[in-house]
Amino acid sequence: MSLSFEHVTLGQRVLFGHGQAADHLSAEVERLGAGKVMVIAGEREVEIAEQVAARIDVAVWHSDVVMHVPVEVAETARRKATDNGVDLLVCVGGGSTTGLAKAVALTTGIPIIAVPTTYAGSEATNVWGLTEAARKTTGVDHKVLPATVIYDSALTLSLPVDMSVASGLNGMAHCIDSLWGPKADPINAALAAEGIRALSAGLPKIVADPQSIAGRDEALYGAYLSAVAFASAGSGLHHKICHVLGGTFNLPHAQTHATVLPYVLAFNAPHAPQAEARAAAAFGTGTALEGLQKLREQVDAPQKLSDYGFTAEGIPETVCIVLEKLPANNPREITADNLTALLTAALNGDDPAVLTGDVQYAQ
Amino acid sequence: MSLSFEHVTLGQRVLFGHGQAADHLSAEVERLGAGKVMVIAGEREVEIAEQVAARIDVAVWHSDVVMHVPVEVAETARRKATDNGVDLLVCVGGGSTTGLAKAVALTTGIPIIAVPTTYAGSEATNVWGLTEAARKTTGVDHKVLPATVIYDSALTLSLPVDMSVASGLNGMAHCIDSLWGPKADPINAALAAEGIRALSAGLPKIVADPQSIAGRDEALYGAYLSAVAFASAGSGLHHKICHVLGGTFNLPHAQTHATVLPYVLAFNAPHAPQAEARAAAAFGTGTALEGLQKLREQVDAPQKLSDYGFTAEGIPETVCIVLEKLPANNPREITADNLTALLTAALNGDDPAVLTGDVQYAQ
Repeated sequence: MSLSFEHVTLGQRVLFGHGQAADHLSAEVERLGAGKVMVIAGEREVEIAEQVAARIDVAVWHSDVVMHVPVEVAETARRKATDNGVDLLVCVGGGSTTGLAKAVALTTGIPIIAVPTTYAGSEATNVWGLTEAARKTTGVDHKVLPATVIYDSALTLSLPVDMSVASGLNGMAHCIDSLWGPKADPINAALAAEGIRALSAGLPKIVADPQSIAGRDEALYGAYLSAVAFASAGSGLHHKICHVLGGTFNLPHAQTHATVLPYVLAFNAPHAPQAEARAAAAFGTGTALEGLQKLREQVDAPQKLSDYGFTAEGIPETVCIVLEKLPANNPREITADNLTALLTAALNGDDPAVLTGDVQYAQ
Repeated sequence: MSLSFEHVTLGQRVLFGHGQAADHLSAEVERLGAGKVMVIAGEREVEIAEQVAARIDVAVWHSDVVMHVPVEVAETARRKATDNGVDLLVCVGGGSTTGLAKAVALTTGIPIIAVPTTYAGSEATNVWGLTEAARKTTGVDHKVLPATVIYDSALTLSLPVDMSVASGLNGMAHCIDSLWGPKADPINAALAAEGIRALSAGLPKIVADPQSIAGRDEALYGAYLSAVAFASAGSGLHHKICHVLGGTFNLPHAQTHATVLPYVLAFNAPHAPQAEARAAAAFGTGTALEGLQKLREQVDAPQKLSDYGFTAEGIPETVCIVLEKLPANNPREITADNLTALLTAALNGDDPAVLTGDVQYAQ
């Protein structure tokens, strides 16, 4: 048995500190020697962005941010950047804002400093996305990877608790699914385990006190690691299922991830003893499922897909589409029958342990 | 209590696989679109290098490799590279070979593919070193970081067991010292913990069977992680002590590290509960010291500094020099008295637990 993998580490500077965004940004702008900075922040984030940019000279402000980055929105921002001789992009916001900065960087090569205000994680990847005529195109390009990410949990204090929980559990899904994703490797797994540890420590603190700095710090740090691990490992079974549930049945993104995760974990874990052991150790519990369920209880996580409009009628179509897109390396063989059982349990909020059944822990 | 850190992740592609170096190298040369490759490998590694380069066109071979990279040796290699229009350097060997490739890259900007045959770890850092008139200069430059590292544990099978152990424990020292090094951060710590796990799994297998592929894989992988974590965290107390013992008293490098490590761990651990918990979890033992000592017993590690020519007369001078170079953030306050106690215990091979004394576990 030998160890064989390819791992691409993306080079990036991460500055992390509560209440330090403005200082960190000013130091980074100086370090990078930027002369003309364009700040991208949506209308709702303008106030936060002004605080973050308080200590730098801003040449151009841009607030036309639209979800999924429509091409025409990207074109306008690109023109604004080049017309003004911008040499540094600073984006303050969530996934759509980072996405717009990436769209500008893709064609202009202008470097990005990202200042995330959510747990979206786009700032830690080299993936871009653009929407044209309602079709989303995505790609990978080194140019769109932010040179520096500035994390400041003070900027996340206004994220509502339910969104923090759903988004944090979405990050948890990135971590766990990356343990058996198509390009899973031990380096990813070490970072994913650290992400599990941080998210499971942070989310209950946020639920207990939405202003908890320790909780916000840990959740933000965990979300960053989840993005790093997931970007490298790719979509495993969990993401394939959630992608169909979201795309075909329009179920809400984060809630769907939060609901489906324990079922995929229960389904795969007995066949992935190393992943199971790593996740359990990160949760600090006897089994990974035990840790996840304890956390889900503490944060009052979504329970069943039927609460989000999914019905038993949707299962056969979901099974059919998922079976076509299966990750080849999933640790457990997937059939129409066991996938139906998984989705039925998730629909009804059954105890996920039913999926482990009488399967013996392998290896 | 908030989380505050700066972490620089170095972007690099890592290809890992036993017996796959020649295939991986050929694929990478193609991916990078290189036309003129210069292979750097010392006399002793030429045979291995020929195997590794079997599937690529080599424009230039260079075998004049000298320890600590003398400037004149670097100059010769640089001229050879530029005179021949070389656009890719491939180095096959240990730290000195990688160091020469870095010296060429430093002035020419030619990218490097590193194929390490030891656990030196230089391939994972952006640190270069050159020696002129017996003085070593080091620096940090992004240009010298190898674009790709190809790890193939088949190339390490001929590393003698005692060298493998000493070098592996040197890697272990990188991992543990990085938990409280001057730029320690949780990302480093996660990678260091993975390194501890891999080295403590791999080294005993090599001692039991020097041809063990699993053991060689794990040790090589652990050595890589130890270099990543250490390069990022910087020199903590352990490295400051060993640097003086090596530099002033000329004690052997790897053996000194292997001997001193449990004493620094016993000294710091009660004051660094998070580091202690992480290391203990990675060893899979109740305390980190227990894990380290169990490993040291399994691999018959060096026991005391008196075996390497150190004497009690050297302690006052060592204490004096170390006190001047102390890392400011060491978790335990360091005094002439407790440092003398540490060195005395390491000199005589006493039970490191004496250093913990009646100190209560802090925090």
